Amino acid sequence: MMFIAFEGCDGAGKGVQLARLHERLESLKIQHVMLRDPGDTCLGDAIRKILLEKSSLNPCVNAEAALFMAARAQLIHEKIIPALQNDNVVVIDRYLLSTAVYQGYANNLPEEELQTLWRSGLALASNLFPDLTLVLDCPTELARQRINRQKDRIESRKQEYHERVALGYRYFAQNWSRYAPGKVALIDAAKTPEDVWTQIQSAISQQLDLELEPRNRTTELT
Amino acid sequence: MMFIAFEGCDGAGKGVQLARLHERLESLKIQHVMLRDPGDTCLGDAIRKILLEKSSLNPCVNAEAALFMAARAQLIHEKIIPALQNDNVVVIDRYLLSTAVYQGYANNLPEEELQTLWRSGLALASNLFPDLTLVLDCPTELARQRINRQKDRIESRKQEYHERVALGYRYFAQNWSRYAPGKVALIDAAKTPEDVWTQIQSAISQQLDLELEPRNRTTELT
Repeated sequence: MMFIAFEGCDGAGKGVQLARLHERLESLKIQHVMLRDPGDTCLGDAIRKILLEKSSLNPCVNAEAALFMAARAQLIHEKIIPALQNDNVVVIDRYLLSTAVYQGYANNLPEEELQTLWRSGLALASNLFPDLTLVLDCPTELARQRINRQKDRIESRKQEYHERVALGYRYFAQNWSRYAPGKVALIDAAKTPEDVWTQIQSAISQQLDLELEPRNRTTELT
Repeated sequence: MMFIAFEGCDGAGKGVQLARLHERLESLKIQHVMLRDPGDTCLGDAIRKILLEKSSLNPCVNAEAALFMAARAQLIHEKIIPALQNDNVVVIDRYLLSTAVYQGYANNLPEEELQTLWRSGLALASNLFPDLTLVLDCPTELARQRINRQKDRIESRKQEYHERVALGYRYFAQNWSRYAPGKVALIDAAKTPEDVWTQIQSAISQQLDLELEPRNRTTELT
């Protein structure tokens, strides 16, 4: 089983790096599935719409957290577990850590409630957690400049909220063992895409038994 | 604060008794709000549709539980807390116990997972729980005969599932202190509506400081 999550604030550059990893896994003929949370199931897409569109539904903090958990549960059930059972590397754009950061830490939840939110989220995720979580750490000002598209309901929140999101990611990365199983790597995402990709490759090969350097593999094969 | 929940399998007769309680509270001029869970908010109605309509979305067990929790969180935020703060008696058709029974016990969740589901549900309900839960206990065969309308997605499940629901309600009522704050009363709902109503009035006046007998009140006033 190999399950990798990409995390980080909007504008940290997850999309670019996910595309690179996908391309590399393709070229190495490593069987894999790329997913995003929330989404990638009919139910998940319906929930994603409720969560991210600016509408009159306007979910409160706890409803928002529970909706993310519902979409994740369905994704695990329909896609993640079957893919892992078929020996795929599963790569996911966001996972439970996003809920803990955006709905928990960024809403100033005290430590005890953060722990409860985490435990609830993990239980509703069938206790399934990525083997490696890559946290793309990026200053909010830079991240903000990088988003050159229409912002969704959560992205449209005040700068102060996004500052808390960035702080939240660092908090969890630093207190990882108190929360999450699996491993974590904090990636400096303020660097160039090339440099960020180097850090990601290095984290994956160090933390998981997965070598992404095509040259190394060729050398081993000769 | 006075918060009363009605629980029980479909066909147990909640609707009739809720209507009677509403009528009585009206005639006694006791300020109150009648709610149903899931529902009664725009978000809750959208979620209710996902949960109860037979569609291709087909939520898995954990997604189903999380969706009920999301609808409940919104109802608490938008309606229950404001109503309680304004000194209303809040009467609700279903609450967290339904999730524990239908998504937990009836799906054969082991004790430990049932506890986790309960704790998650309570946390996402801001730890708000009814002062009194009235469980309308009814044999499934009788309940089934009483439903004379088109069944929804959950009602359409096999008889075996509904047997587990009935058992689940009894299990929680008997092990109440291991799970829930507040009080519980197991009502024999196989009796006539008149007899069930007598049991309900008696449970409310015994467990809460709320007298529903108009004659008694008149006597006291003279």
